[in-house]
Amino acid sequence: MGVGIIGASPERGWAASAHIPALRALPAYEIRALSTSRRESAQAASRQFGVPLAFDNAEELVARPEVDLVVVSVKVPQHRELVTTALEAGKDVYCEWPLGNGLAEAEALAALARARGVRAIVGLQARASPAVRYVRDLVSSGFVGEVLSTSLVGSGLAWGGIIDPSSLYLLDARNGATLLTIPFGHTVDALCWCLGEFREVSATLATRRPAVPVMGTNETRPQTSPDQVAVSGVLTTGAVASIHYRGGTSRGTNLLWEINGTEGDLVFTGSSGHLQMTDLSLSGGNGKEKFGPLSIPERYFAAPGAPQGSAFNVAQAYAQFAQDPGSVPSFDDAVVRHKMIEAILEAARTGQTQRL
Amino acid sequence: MGVGIIGASPERGWAASAHIPALRALPAYEIRALSTSRRESAQAASRQFGVPLAFDNAEELVARPEVDLVVVSVKVPQHRELVTTALEAGKDVYCEWPLGNGLAEAEALAALARARGVRAIVGLQARASPAVRYVRDLVSSGFVGEVLSTSLVGSGLAWGGIIDPSSLYLLDARNGATLLTIPFGHTVDALCWCLGEFREVSATLATRRPAVPVMGTNETRPQTSPDQVAVSGVLTTGAVASIHYRGGTSRGTNLLWEINGTEGDLVFTGSSGHLQMTDLSLSGGNGKEKFGPLSIPERYFAAPGAPQGSAFNVAQAYAQFAQDPGSVPSFDDAVVRHKMIEAILEAARTGQTQRL
Repeated sequence: MGVGIIGASPERGWAASAHIPALRALPAYEIRALSTSRRESAQAASRQFGVPLAFDNAEELVARPEVDLVVVSVKVPQHRELVTTALEAGKDVYCEWPLGNGLAEAEALAALARARGVRAIVGLQARASPAVRYVRDLVSSGFVGEVLSTSLVGSGLAWGGIIDPSSLYLLDARNGATLLTIPFGHTVDALCWCLGEFREVSATLATRRPAVPVMGTNETRPQTSPDQVAVSGVLTTGAVASIHYRGGTSRGTNLLWEINGTEGDLVFTGSSGHLQMTDLSLSGGNGKEKFGPLSIPERYFAAPGAPQGSAFNVAQAYAQFAQDPGSVPSFDDAVVRHKMIEAILEAARTGQTQRL
Repeated sequence: MGVGIIGASPERGWAASAHIPALRALPAYEIRALSTSRRESAQAASRQFGVPLAFDNAEELVARPEVDLVVVSVKVPQHRELVTTALEAGKDVYCEWPLGNGLAEAEALAALARARGVRAIVGLQARASPAVRYVRDLVSSGFVGEVLSTSLVGSGLAWGGIIDPSSLYLLDARNGATLLTIPFGHTVDALCWCLGEFREVSATLATRRPAVPVMGTNETRPQTSPDQVAVSGVLTTGAVASIHYRGGTSRGTNLLWEINGTEGDLVFTGSSGHLQMTDLSLSGGNGKEKFGPLSIPERYFAAPGAPQGSAFNVAQAYAQFAQDPGSVPSFDDAVVRHKMIEAILEAARTGQTQRL
């Protein structure tokens, strides 16, 4: 499959750290084109990544017949325009999560993808994690019995005590790239994929650091993104869920996701609340068996040779897409997640539990 | 100080496991009388505990001039009547938590205690825990900087998959002895004592096991007590709190209470969500210091020789009361906690955030 990457900055960013290493590890894919916003950076990226076609605009990239799948890996506010361009060219699209800057954009993009009849997938790659896929099967096969509840505590890495100048857009809630949408969103997507969707949510949001120092400067910048996200609710199964995300990093718990059932318990831990890209450890036990580490069976690794780190689950997702395009999260799945996030915002704004 | 214990069953119960060993370890106290509901059990308790005066009714106990302090350690529905009897006799009272079966009873008892001018204390002994007292001082001295948020996950031990026949009253919410009032109540009291009260609460409550098997029988009994308690809210300081209590015991996390601040973090762990009586471990770190176990300075142990286990914090509370009666939680403190619990019930019932 020929891939064109929109947003393949040579210096930094998610495309360079995750998509490019992931795609290179997979023989089913070939990176044939890239674009960035400037001629110079596109040429630098072309050289650095060994990609023959390099453009300073998305229109030329999506028009190329060599490109079957367009990857959109840019800041959230640009998703709508660039994904629309790719969809209108009739190309398959892999867009990073969050799909839209808010629900309305995501719905519009999902509708357009359906109308064009292309395959449109969203980068909710926690679902591609071998550990998460294993837990989903364990839960559905009754390892924990009936799920009674689930507890999740995580740290956001960003939205903490200091901000890198290149990440300033994370501070402004209007950009749609927040603690709530990114680490919470990725992780709760895995939670719902394993345990079912929420049928009701209550929420407390707060911005505890309204001004954040900028790294390497004497400046501070205003923050409107919530740096505290506390959600409780009931899943469609009746299980109760409690989730707390905080900005920054704790010296204590940075990821604890526990699933408690009538017959057993499962516990994920990791070094950040970005479950989609952290080093995950899984423990479990049921009945009278000892509780302890669980190792993930080989069959859950869709891309066994994938590079560790950020690229790992992205590679798993690409490998799954190549094997079975319907097995990875679609734009319609992204809309479900955006609706849940809107419900959380509304619950926090009104103080009223929202039904989904 | 002469002590009379109402509810000193010789076979089992909190008086036998906590109050009596605690009082025996403290030279400031002498257990001079006890009562139970039956003549035979009172006489058996008298022999077993070596207490000279034994009654099958509370009236005779509170009337004895040898008794300065009346301990009420019976099931919650009996608190109102027995505490009232003791207060009307003009005696100081130590009543187990929860003080009342609901807020109205607690308010009536607190008002009566004020009217009688006696010292009336409630068994919220988590505040007497050396580790909790140390953390309160650490927080107020700035160890974690400004508190940004706190996360708490705990197990209730009871309200799980099976019930002991002697504990059946825990299943019926009308008895006021629930997962919400007992383990959650004790622990959140410590949380609020260290970090400040809640100014608003949202809540999800559920009873996931509406029928509970009775140990040693083929019977099940209906449960109306919530066996899932998920609360989020904002403290008066602006810090966000997220709390999840579940019935029973997890193979994973049974107590995790983490405090995250601008400059440091503190983490309690323990083997149950009953922070008031579990084996607590405390870790912490701030600034660039390494995060690790913290040992509790000697000065926080009010009763250094107290027996470990259930009696430990009860002994600390008695020792503090003997040294400084105003340093232990009063009936007025109990009313504050009952109000919070009523707000949680109302938040869950209405789906509407409650302000306190």
